[in-house]
Amino acid sequence: MKETPEEKRNRLLSLAKLNVGSAYAGTEHSIAQAIASYNELEKTRNLVHEKLEEWYGIFFPELRLSNPISYAKFIERFGMDKKSADRPAVTELLGGAADQVLALASRSIGREPSGEEYEQLKALAQLELHIVETEDKLDKYLEASTKKLMPNITYLIDYKVAAELLARAGSLEKLALMPAGTIQLLGAEKALFKHIKFGSKSPKYGSIFKLQQVGNAGRFDRGRIARAYGAKLAIAARADGISKNFIADKLKEQLEETIKRQSNRPPKPGRQNNQHVGRGQQRQGRGDFRHDGNWHGKRQRRQ
Amino acid sequence: MKETPEEKRNRLLSLAKLNVGSAYAGTEHSIAQAIASYNELEKTRNLVHEKLEEWYGIFFPELRLSNPISYAKFIERFGMDKKSADRPAVTELLGGAADQVLALASRSIGREPSGEEYEQLKALAQLELHIVETEDKLDKYLEASTKKLMPNITYLIDYKVAAELLARAGSLEKLALMPAGTIQLLGAEKALFKHIKFGSKSPKYGSIFKLQQVGNAGRFDRGRIARAYGAKLAIAARADGISKNFIADKLKEQLEETIKRQSNRPPKPGRQNNQHVGRGQQRQGRGDFRHDGNWHGKRQRRQ
Repeated sequence: MKETPEEKRNRLLSLAKLNVGSAYAGTEHSIAQAIASYNELEKTRNLVHEKLEEWYGIFFPELRLSNPISYAKFIERFGMDKKSADRPAVTELLGGAADQVLALASRSIGREPSGEEYEQLKALAQLELHIVETEDKLDKYLEASTKKLMPNITYLIDYKVAAELLARAGSLEKLALMPAGTIQLLGAEKALFKHIKFGSKSPKYGSIFKLQQVGNAGRFDRGRIARAYGAKLAIAARADGISKNFIADKLKEQLEETIKRQSNRPPKPGRQNNQHVGRGQQRQGRGDFRHDGNWHGKRQRRQ
Repeated sequence: MKETPEEKRNRLLSLAKLNVGSAYAGTEHSIAQAIASYNELEKTRNLVHEKLEEWYGIFFPELRLSNPISYAKFIERFGMDKKSADRPAVTELLGGAADQVLALASRSIGREPSGEEYEQLKALAQLELHIVETEDKLDKYLEASTKKLMPNITYLIDYKVAAELLARAGSLEKLALMPAGTIQLLGAEKALFKHIKFGSKSPKYGSIFKLQQVGNAGRFDRGRIARAYGAKLAIAARADGISKNFIADKLKEQLEETIKRQSNRPPKPGRQNNQHVGRGQQRQGRGDFRHDGNWHGKRQRRQ
């Protein structure tokens, strides 16, 4: 019996639904969502803290605490009446800084907030602490799930950077099929297309710049170290996504060796201080390659 | 005995501190902080909700609820296992929409989240609900404190708009000394300076555009209604900040009469459809006044 168009439509529709469902079956999409949410919460927490510090600044402008969580907790506990704050309790919260803070409180020029004002400040402080708590939860989830899904990549680099690479690639399979140079530049798409379109300097690193080993490296080593990471990450991604072997211990050894070797190499001539390079032309900047904006091979007239 | 320079310095310093302290003694600064925090939380809530909807979209892409709070509560209660959600409980939360949502859940293409995934979703949903709660608290505080500080202004307009006007003016005293036109344009500073500097169209309203009576008015009435509000608000601000009388009931009557009169007036000629006005020139747009960018009175040559 031949199926009617109606039946065919329904069959194909349910097939498509099944495919969509199975495409989202893995944990990788949740990891991508989790890292995006984490980054968003980080921004959100900053915004709320800014408002809190601005508002409580009316009442205790002298208070400076480098840790925003301590600041929020201080408001929650002692915001109502800073001058008669309990010394042991303050010491418990702030440690060695307690004496100084109490001294500042006793000669503060700010008035004490009214009951209603304190209620609002406390609510904002508690909200900030709740955001921090949610961030911690996401952080733990990210650590556990990325280490399970990508044992090789997370052995080489921080799990949050690994999650970001995964999110930008779209899926582990896509990440596993990417060449090293693409992984090196994941997250620098904007700079890359600016380079391609307008001939600005080419980016040397994307999300992996967040790694301490790349970000804190010397100016002239960063690009090389990023390239080394890109190369080893590409191999690790293949192991995680396709062969499912654990080879990251060897990769890490090789990576460390490469980085050591790269760091000891002197910078290329012509890069450090605009020396003359080739045909007597002075290059501007330290870009490897500058496109003149003429993609079509036409001769351009100087104006 | 003459005071030493050291003594003099200390005396003046403590005097300055006293002045700073008393300048922040009123509630108006807390109102300004509260409305700023409220607006920030509104943004924050949207950001968190976006992430939540995106993430839960993996598991229940068919779910569309116009109320974000219901969406968050749905995830909190039924996110773990949407297909076996308890019908009475869903009805309690969603009312008449429950049947439809349960039908969608039973044939959803999304899988159920794992325990860890649900933990994260729940945490985000609870955070959103906490933000909403904090917003409500701020809202109540704003209502009570603005109505106490500015009985006349809040009789005429919404208390949140009143708080915003106060925040933009800096203090009640400053607001009380402002001319009507300035109050009308408070919050449109950017457009105003663009108008002054580049000759773009002049703004007709600032923060008071958020009033239903202004924002929902017809295109050609809005400016006039905004002007009427500005005029009455200036008088109300003087009553709140200086004379401390309650005259808003009379002001409101006058205001309503003015608005009625203005709405019945036909639009000025030349505004609706670029008719010829004066000296045979065709005006572009409906701007009242266009500056040609020549502030210095010099003759400009056409290029």
